[in-house]
Amino acid sequence: MTESVDDTALRAWAYLARVAEPPCAAIESLCDELGPAEAAAAIRARSVPPGHAGVLEATAARADSDRAAADLEVAERIGARLVTRDDPEWPAWALMTLGQADTAVRGGPPLALWVRGPGRLDEMATNGVALIGSRAASGYGEQVTSTLASGLALENWTVTSGAAYGIDGVAHRAALAAGGPTMAVLACGIDRDYPAGHARLIAEIGEHGLVVSEYPPGTTAAKHRFLTRNRLVAAMSDAVVVVEAGRRSGAANTAAWARKLGRPLGAVPGPVTSATSVGCHRMISDDLAVLVTDTRSVIALARPDGAGDIGRGRGRETDDLSDDQIRVHDAIPARGAVTIEEIAFSAGLDVSVVRSALAVMDVGGHVVNVNGAWRLS
Amino acid sequence: MTESVDDTALRAWAYLARVAEPPCAAIESLCDELGPAEAAAAIRARSVPPGHAGVLEATAARADSDRAAADLEVAERIGARLVTRDDPEWPAWALMTLGQADTAVRGGPPLALWVRGPGRLDEMATNGVALIGSRAASGYGEQVTSTLASGLALENWTVTSGAAYGIDGVAHRAALAAGGPTMAVLACGIDRDYPAGHARLIAEIGEHGLVVSEYPPGTTAAKHRFLTRNRLVAAMSDAVVVVEAGRRSGAANTAAWARKLGRPLGAVPGPVTSATSVGCHRMISDDLAVLVTDTRSVIALARPDGAGDIGRGRGRETDDLSDDQIRVHDAIPARGAVTIEEIAFSAGLDVSVVRSALAVMDVGGHVVNVNGAWRLS
Repeated sequence: MTESVDDTALRAWAYLARVAEPPCAAIESLCDELGPAEAAAAIRARSVPPGHAGVLEATAARADSDRAAADLEVAERIGARLVTRDDPEWPAWALMTLGQADTAVRGGPPLALWVRGPGRLDEMATNGVALIGSRAASGYGEQVTSTLASGLALENWTVTSGAAYGIDGVAHRAALAAGGPTMAVLACGIDRDYPAGHARLIAEIGEHGLVVSEYPPGTTAAKHRFLTRNRLVAAMSDAVVVVEAGRRSGAANTAAWARKLGRPLGAVPGPVTSATSVGCHRMISDDLAVLVTDTRSVIALARPDGAGDIGRGRGRETDDLSDDQIRVHDAIPARGAVTIEEIAFSAGLDVSVVRSALAVMDVGGHVVNVNGAWRLS
Repeated sequence: MTESVDDTALRAWAYLARVAEPPCAAIESLCDELGPAEAAAAIRARSVPPGHAGVLEATAARADSDRAAADLEVAERIGARLVTRDDPEWPAWALMTLGQADTAVRGGPPLALWVRGPGRLDEMATNGVALIGSRAASGYGEQVTSTLASGLALENWTVTSGAAYGIDGVAHRAALAAGGPTMAVLACGIDRDYPAGHARLIAEIGEHGLVVSEYPPGTTAAKHRFLTRNRLVAAMSDAVVVVEAGRRSGAANTAAWARKLGRPLGAVPGPVTSATSVGCHRMISDDLAVLVTDTRSVIALARPDGAGDIGRGRGRETDDLSDDQIRVHDAIPARGAVTIEEIAFSAGLDVSVVRSALAVMDVGGHVVNVNGAWRLS
């Protein structure tokens, strides 16, 4: 049986994906220069072009062990596939920022991704929100996660997480229950179920959504792989929301990745008496995360230019307003309606001034009267 | 019996304090020019100097009714006193900002304050935190209020509030229970107990702390007086903390005053599922209030230059650090300890670089090793 060019390339990718612990900037760079087949051949032959010496070091331990064919067979058996940068569903856009210099430590883009499920990787990676948090979630955290995940899924946002116990699992489950897309990024091989207690959940995600891993089949979960995996969770999400995190939660690492990659970071507040909200509160008070409370605020975080229903400045431009009118405008909260007296109070203007300003602004479409109270239009 | 100069002045102040609904900028301005006795005489005679015509309008309804002596008698009977700007305990510093132009709408300084209790007004008005919030507080809100008020009182901070049901009452009670100073600012006469159900609490505050009102004896509470009173709560506090507030809580008005007067504003987060935390969450996410969780963060809010135990930059100066060392410094959170790997990750530096930076910084006293993890010193 002859092997097609595609098969050769795929086997080369599979070889490259295993020959060094991912991500490996040296292999990526070699690949960019030679293409996957020649890059694989060069590593096997221990002979790389000048300037790529780092590849030999990174691949010294595994260069002679070629499990590419076996990996692809395992993948086929479990219904998984290897998605490479040559594939149309490669999430190039989502991963782009990982290629930038300041993420070099443990932070390059993946060379390829093993995926399992009917979801299309590039689409799920650019229309999703990561809901993450403590494994030891509280009942409150689980409740909020479930509400957010359902809400997002019903709006057809992919709910992305790490399939762990606690917040992760609740997020995936609620998205599945709502019939929406969900994506689990694993820190182990695509054929492994980690944690074991979530085998059934991971199988369900693989049936209805997408299970993703940059680790070749058979790879066991390890601490450093969680940290590496976390960058993919952040990169392949439009926003990252920490629902619950203790003082030293692993979620802080994904949150740090979100900030590093320029992904909007949200955190859900909770009782100040709850240990599992301490991390969220700290992120908010340190101005690292935006406080989010519901599906709507999460979507506004993920699409700041979209819904536009959060924050000031929505609605009409204020360029054509007089000074008094601008003060009135600024005195009306972004959400909700207020009375003329409240506006006068906040704006420091006389009620009569406010009343005439509102009249003009009403005609101009800047404000709306709702049962005697006023809100921004 | 002859009347002393002081008595004459006091009666003039008492007259002026009642002759118009406070605050009254026109009377204040007349007083500044003529002094209280002559100002009172001018109003009685309906003859004021040029440029003070506004006084006649503001005092038209009450000029002929002189209850000054009676007011002072009532005050004496209930152990209250009238504190004027001639008195050493006048809180000039705290009230100064109320005299500024942009607070003119319902916002001038009080002409005088009726007070009852052993506390010294100027001291309590400059070493306190206002704890405010919903009348319909939740069990959670009451618990947090109690914890904060006790903590503040034990550190000898005055706990200031409005003696209302809910958060206000819990704040005063917890401060009293901790044996600390507490100040209640009323929206009715100093001889009135509003709300009636808090008569006993207000009496206790008057015995151990201070009850304050700008309204003459007998004045009943009214909606506009709550709004006017709120500016005093904000002005006479070093920081204002909203513990719980619903979507349209009255606490928002005091919070608006805090911002207007430049008082640091804090808000306590709570469950996103709780209606009484909605207002707090909104203030935080709209960047109007700082998220606070405990006594320490409230004190740091009130004395940003004091304790200095919140936020970065505490401890040693970083001027003498190298670039790598500064990156390491910045990668260590303000609170808590982190591992070398976490620092390397956050700083985007190699572990070896971090290790040698930490060694130098340890010697320099910038960092401390705690059981293998590192924190800022």
